Amino acid sequence: VTGRIRRAEIIAAGSELLTPHRIDTNSLYLTGQLNELGVVVRLKSVVGDDRDDLAEVVRQALARADLVITTGGLGPTADDLTREVVADVLGLSLELDEGIFASIRARFDRRGVKMPEINRRQALVPRGAEALPNAFGTAPGLWLEVAGRMVALLPGPPRELRPMFETYVAPRIAQASGGFRLRRRIIKITGRSESQVEELAFPIYSQFATATPAIETTILAWPGQIELHLATSGTDVAALEEVLEGAVVRLAAAVGPAVFSVDGSSLEAVVGRILEERGWFVAVAESCTGGTLLGRLTDVPGSSAWVLGGVVAYADEVKVRELDVPADLIAAHGAVSEPVAQAMAAGVCRRFAADVGVAITGIAGPGGGSVEKPVGTVAIAIAGPGAAVRTFTFPGDREAIRRHATSAALDMVRSALSPKP
Amino acid sequence: VTGRIRRAEIIAAGSELLTPHRIDTNSLYLTGQLNELGVVVRLKSVVGDDRDDLAEVVRQALARADLVITTGGLGPTADDLTREVVADVLGLSLELDEGIFASIRARFDRRGVKMPEINRRQALVPRGAEALPNAFGTAPGLWLEVAGRMVALLPGPPRELRPMFETYVAPRIAQASGGFRLRRRIIKITGRSESQVEELAFPIYSQFATATPAIETTILAWPGQIELHLATSGTDVAALEEVLEGAVVRLAAAVGPAVFSVDGSSLEAVVGRILEERGWFVAVAESCTGGTLLGRLTDVPGSSAWVLGGVVAYADEVKVRELDVPADLIAAHGAVSEPVAQAMAAGVCRRFAADVGVAITGIAGPGGGSVEKPVGTVAIAIAGPGAAVRTFTFPGDREAIRRHATSAALDMVRSALSPKP
Repeated sequence: VTGRIRRAEIIAAGSELLTPHRIDTNSLYLTGQLNELGVVVRLKSVVGDDRDDLAEVVRQALARADLVITTGGLGPTADDLTREVVADVLGLSLELDEGIFASIRARFDRRGVKMPEINRRQALVPRGAEALPNAFGTAPGLWLEVAGRMVALLPGPPRELRPMFETYVAPRIAQASGGFRLRRRIIKITGRSESQVEELAFPIYSQFATATPAIETTILAWPGQIELHLATSGTDVAALEEVLEGAVVRLAAAVGPAVFSVDGSSLEAVVGRILEERGWFVAVAESCTGGTLLGRLTDVPGSSAWVLGGVVAYADEVKVRELDVPADLIAAHGAVSEPVAQAMAAGVCRRFAADVGVAITGIAGPGGGSVEKPVGTVAIAIAGPGAAVRTFTFPGDREAIRRHATSAALDMVRSALSPKP
Repeated sequence: VTGRIRRAEIIAAGSELLTPHRIDTNSLYLTGQLNELGVVVRLKSVVGDDRDDLAEVVRQALARADLVITTGGLGPTADDLTREVVADVLGLSLELDEGIFASIRARFDRRGVKMPEINRRQALVPRGAEALPNAFGTAPGLWLEVAGRMVALLPGPPRELRPMFETYVAPRIAQASGGFRLRRRIIKITGRSESQVEELAFPIYSQFATATPAIETTILAWPGQIELHLATSGTDVAALEEVLEGAVVRLAAAVGPAVFSVDGSSLEAVVGRILEERGWFVAVAESCTGGTLLGRLTDVPGSSAWVLGGVVAYADEVKVRELDVPADLIAAHGAVSEPVAQAMAAGVCRRFAADVGVAITGIAGPGGGSVEKPVGTVAIAIAGPGAAVRTFTFPGDREAIRRHATSAALDMVRSALSPKP
């Protein structure tokens, strides 16, 4: 394919990215955007605010890649070296761009602040480079084309980087990549292990790898969620989308009803859509998950159209008083039991006048486990149409168990509301 | 300092790390561990399962660094190239280690599974390398010392990598680094902006940079939380800890009561400790934060000793029915108002027989804002001793607003329960 960009590299500059506390997440965004444009990222580097290190990484990337994108290091301070180092490596002099200088000064004037002298550095542009306006900060980006290579220098803050990439960088790359595009689809699955999904999906997707156009398939696993990622590339976007759609249909059929979305939707959004279609409202009673199921549901914008709310009954007396769970039921079966889960679900459903009640009670650990009910034991009940109750034993630490439990509860709501075959 | 390791680099191998969906997080753990050992990470690279790319990255790292740690690519499949590529770059032949081969086979035998032939590759060891046993998987790690350089090859899964690093790699690095150590402290702050903290802290910490031993200070900002990270290095660990303690005391005094922890504790854990010391219980009423405050509180292990639970009153009728908020109060002031927040806090406190009630009601967006009450408007109330109410306007998107709101609520509980000067 003419003009296709074969190798892209991303360089993240900033000493804070070499601490135990911060990680380069801009590259995830950039990789997604580049993939859409048919460009594959071959290498990512993270380098501190060190002139020699940065120069070496930039030099090596330029020797290998058709497209190099740097993030960070465009600020006004002495630590911000990207502009100078790239100019230096490419042997370009830096020149003051009067237009940029005026716009930086105007930005300070608007806020009634005198521009600090150090911000002058941000108006320096390597000879031959184009400055990319920054609508959300003082640091302009830079675009260079040198000896068949493209270089984009972008600011570190995501809210500055993203609009700059989309407005100024993406169109330039699209032009250079000669219409070559990559398209992805994601199949999301819950209630199955990675190896169960692999067993069902492998016979299908192994054929895709050698088909034309080839589809690359990857399995990713999280607590409570497995994903099949499909990607294919070419110039005819409609054809790519059609071939992906066919692949998604075949894989989803093979994996079965454990597939909850093929359009990128989260499990909570899928559940919300089903509720909203029926005009139904859900109420939630949570013990061990402590509000995180409600947190996931209300994380969906517009969720007030189908979530009434719920009760977090961490203490047993709250289960009795606020959810009408009979105290002797807890005494007889224990707070982590199917009868108590059912009573919690029925209680919250009645109290909140909801159409569907969901309840989770379990042992998230690290303490509280026993031989009969080890850490990870969770009882989940649905009240209302499709009422159900199940006991699970989830693996992992406290966070993983809580995540597994909320996904299993959402999936039980989904099953309860789905038309049965 | 004799034997100090001056340059460490981390290479993460795996094509999944070059997608928009997965990021190398092992390097955060490794950086923390290396820092403890007085070793600073100078560069991180992420490379796909490509022989040439991996070889080039390994070669360049070995040319610069005293210590190179690779993660991933030690599995049994054709994609797993790290072992071969590193041996190749160093010019070392691969030899079958009979002991490792036997232990891999034994692992399969124990599970009653015949060892697949491909797993034989995992028993190949570059001549002169030491194999590092893997207690949690089949892939052994490798340790090499070649021409004054140390190289550790570690498996990608964190639960395999971490114990292997701590058991086999850390002691070897400690020996090589000649007793040189780095120590960190973190001061956590809420309710102040990054620039407010900078203004208060800069006059103090700017002196630390030129003191002996020098302390490096970094400010990190998240929605609702600012952190000052202090780090210093040397061989006398007791002296390092003493000098850091002095610096922490001075900075905490300068920043004032907005400092909520100097020992790494989260805000929710600090609030929990205060409640537990008094033998008090908290109950929570949430609207716009939809259970995420309860989620943060119950995320603390052992939180059942001080959290009773709460009500997520997403719908107005739930505020009335489950929290006894008078309907005409909502009609008069709107659901997002100080009187309604106070009524919610009082209601949940009384209903749950709690010592302290907390309530949050606000507009997290993206919809629902108005000129008088824009998106980000949040009213928070505390009921019980130290009762208080405040209205905030938080910046950012839905997620940031929800995070800001839960941090502000936790901080109001902390203030309500702290002895007044």
